[in-house]
Amino acid sequence: MQLAEIETPALVLDVQKMDRNVARMRAHLAELGVALRPHVKTSKAIDVVRRTLGTDSGPITVSTLKEAEYFLGHGITDMLYAVGITPNKLDHVLRLQQAGARLRLILDNEEAARAMVAKIKASGAAFEVLIEIDCDGHRSGVKPDAPELISIGRLLHDGGATLAGVMTHAGSSYNCESIDAIVRMAEQERSLAVHCAQRLRAAGLPCPVVSVGSTPTATYARDLTGVTEVRAGVFVFFDLVMAGIDVCRLDDIALSVLTTVIGHQADRGWIITDAGWMAMSRDRGTARQKLDQGYGVVCDVHGTPIPGLIMDQANQEHGVLAHRSGDPRQTPHLPVGTLLRILPNHACATGAQHDRYHVISGDAPVQAVWPRFSGW
Amino acid sequence: MQLAEIETPALVLDVQKMDRNVARMRAHLAELGVALRPHVKTSKAIDVVRRTLGTDSGPITVSTLKEAEYFLGHGITDMLYAVGITPNKLDHVLRLQQAGARLRLILDNEEAARAMVAKIKASGAAFEVLIEIDCDGHRSGVKPDAPELISIGRLLHDGGATLAGVMTHAGSSYNCESIDAIVRMAEQERSLAVHCAQRLRAAGLPCPVVSVGSTPTATYARDLTGVTEVRAGVFVFFDLVMAGIDVCRLDDIALSVLTTVIGHQADRGWIITDAGWMAMSRDRGTARQKLDQGYGVVCDVHGTPIPGLIMDQANQEHGVLAHRSGDPRQTPHLPVGTLLRILPNHACATGAQHDRYHVISGDAPVQAVWPRFSGW
Repeated sequence: MQLAEIETPALVLDVQKMDRNVARMRAHLAELGVALRPHVKTSKAIDVVRRTLGTDSGPITVSTLKEAEYFLGHGITDMLYAVGITPNKLDHVLRLQQAGARLRLILDNEEAARAMVAKIKASGAAFEVLIEIDCDGHRSGVKPDAPELISIGRLLHDGGATLAGVMTHAGSSYNCESIDAIVRMAEQERSLAVHCAQRLRAAGLPCPVVSVGSTPTATYARDLTGVTEVRAGVFVFFDLVMAGIDVCRLDDIALSVLTTVIGHQADRGWIITDAGWMAMSRDRGTARQKLDQGYGVVCDVHGTPIPGLIMDQANQEHGVLAHRSGDPRQTPHLPVGTLLRILPNHACATGAQHDRYHVISGDAPVQAVWPRFSGW
Repeated sequence: MQLAEIETPALVLDVQKMDRNVARMRAHLAELGVALRPHVKTSKAIDVVRRTLGTDSGPITVSTLKEAEYFLGHGITDMLYAVGITPNKLDHVLRLQQAGARLRLILDNEEAARAMVAKIKASGAAFEVLIEIDCDGHRSGVKPDAPELISIGRLLHDGGATLAGVMTHAGSSYNCESIDAIVRMAEQERSLAVHCAQRLRAAGLPCPVVSVGSTPTATYARDLTGVTEVRAGVFVFFDLVMAGIDVCRLDDIALSVLTTVIGHQADRGWIITDAGWMAMSRDRGTARQKLDQGYGVVCDVHGTPIPGLIMDQANQEHGVLAHRSGDPRQTPHLPVGTLLRILPNHACATGAQHDRYHVISGDAPVQAVWPRFSGW
C-alpha cells in the first residue's frame, strides 16, 4: 500500500527514524550504566514498545491502568504506574496483580499511604511503592528535604507495603532554553533523587530503586551515579517541542499526520486541509518556544519540510496552512488533492487522536498498520 | 451505579441539562420556521443524536466519513458531510451511497468540481453537492460575489451532479464579544447565504437548499428568511467557550470530567488530580476570552462550581488545580480521594478524548453508559 491509498487524515510512523531514536537512547543509557524503563504513554502500542525494549517482557512505565491492562495482556509484567495512586484505584491494581502483573505504584503523601496501609490490613494485599520526589517544583512530589519523606516511608514500611524506592520526573526540562540548562537539570534530577534515597536508607528504610527521567534529561545526562533506571517516553517519536529545545533535529521526528489539500483562500495565502486539531491535537507546545510552529510543520508527502509553511490555524476537521511570514505570496501553490505530512508539536498528544499507525520506512510503501489505543 | 464507583478520569453527561439545551434550540428554530440538521461531530454517539433529533432517521451533519458510516449503521440516512470533498474520498462516498446513505457533499473550488465531474463520467456515479460560501472570512468557501460561484455551479450542473444548494458556517461567531455582535453575525450569515442562492437561481441554476449554522448564530438568529436548514453542534452539551460569550450559562454545561484528587503542593496552593490534558483535551479556547478558565472550571461531585477554582495547568495524566487569584491561601483543602467534576473549555474536544459517556440526571445515580467513537 502506498501513502496515496490511505484515507486522510491518518497517522504515519517512519520506523527507520524511530529505530534510530531508540538505538541512540539505549546506547547512551548503556554507557551510563542504567536501565531504560520506557514510558509507553507516548505510543500505547505493543509493536512500538517491543521494538523499544528489544525484548518481550519489560520493564515499562505506564500512565494509566488501562495501559497496564493492555500491556499485561501482551505479556509485559514489570510495570511502574507513574501517577499518584488513590484509594479508589487499589482494587483495580489488585486485579492486575492477580492476573500476573508486577505493578509498582507511586505516592507522595501520608493520606494515600494510610489508605494503602488500611487496604493491606483489610485485604492482606501486597503493594510495592515508590515515593515520588519533587526535584524541580513543576508538579507532584515530596520536597527533597521534607520530613514527610521519612514519615511516609515509615508508614508504608511499618504498614506492610514494600518500600521499593524513590522516583522523580524533571518535567521542567521541557522549558529549558539551552542544552547546558538541560545538562544542569539532569544533574539536579539525579542528585536530588539520590539524596532522597540516602535519607531513606539513613533512616533504616529500604530504597533499592532510584528512578528518574524525562526525554530531555535522559538525552543529556552526563552521569547517573546512584540511579538505577531511567524513564522517558517521547524520544521514540520525538516532536517539534523536542526539536525546539535541541533534544532532536527536525529530521528525527518519526511521527506525522498525512493530510489532503481540500481548498484555498488565495488572497490570504491559505491552503485548507482535511487535518485539523482533531488529527493534530490542540497541543500548541511550541507557542512558548523561540520558534512558534503553529499546529505543525508542513512537509511534502516524502516528509521533507516545505520552507516556511506551517499549520497556522486549526478547526476540528480543517487545517489552515500559511507561510510563517504571513505574506500570502510566499505560500506555494499546492493543488486540491495534494498529499502533505504535518510534523506534530507533541507526539503523545497527536498520537492519542488516532487508533493506528501507518508504518513506513523512508520512501518505501506502507509495510504495516499497528493498532494503538486511548482512554481509560 | 454511583459516580464514586467509576474509575477516574471519566466523562459525565447530565442528560437533564442536555435535554433542556436541545429543547431550547428546537423551539427557537421551530419559531423561525427552519429545520435543524444537528452536527454530530460534538457527541459522536447515537444515543445523544437520537435524543437531539427526536426521531431515528435524521437529518444530520457529519465531519468525517467514519461518522457517516457509523450513523448509517444506526439507520440514519440523510447526511451532509460538511468538509470540502477531495477526489481521494469519492470512492468511499460511493460505497456509503450503495449502503443506503443519502450523503450530500460540499466543495468550494473548480478543481474539486472537475474531479467530481470526471468521476461521474468515469463511473456513472451520482452526487448531490452544496457549494460552500465564505460568509465571514474565517476559513473555507467561495466569496459571496465571486464569479466562481456561478462557474462552479455550472460545472457541477452541466457535468451531471445534482446541485443541491449552498451552505455556510459563521465560525467567527465564536469570537464575538457581545450578543449584539452575534445577532449581527447571524444576519450576515443568513443574508450572504441567501444572496448566493439568489445568484445561482438568477443564473438558471437550481438551489433548493440554503444551509447555515453555528451554535452562537443559531441561538441568537432573529430571522432566517430564505434559509432552509440550520446546522449546529455544541449546543447539545455547551461548554466554557460558549458560556464566555453568553451563548449559555455555566449551569447549562451538560458535560464534565470526573476526577480524583491525588495529592497537593500546599505551599503553592495546588491540588493535583488524575485528569490532565488527556482527559480534558489541550483546548484552551477561553484563553482568548475575557475570563480565562485555564483547562476548566472545578466543581464538586454534584456539579456545583467551587468559587475561583480552575484547572490551572495540565500534564498528560495530571491536572493542577489552583485558585484563579494565584493566592495559595484561597485554595480550599480537598483531601486525597475527593471526587471533583471539571467543566470543559470545548465539549467537542473533551468528548473526543473519551470512549463513553456516564449518563446522569442531576444528582441521581448513573443511569446508562453511552458509547462514543473517535478517529477516521
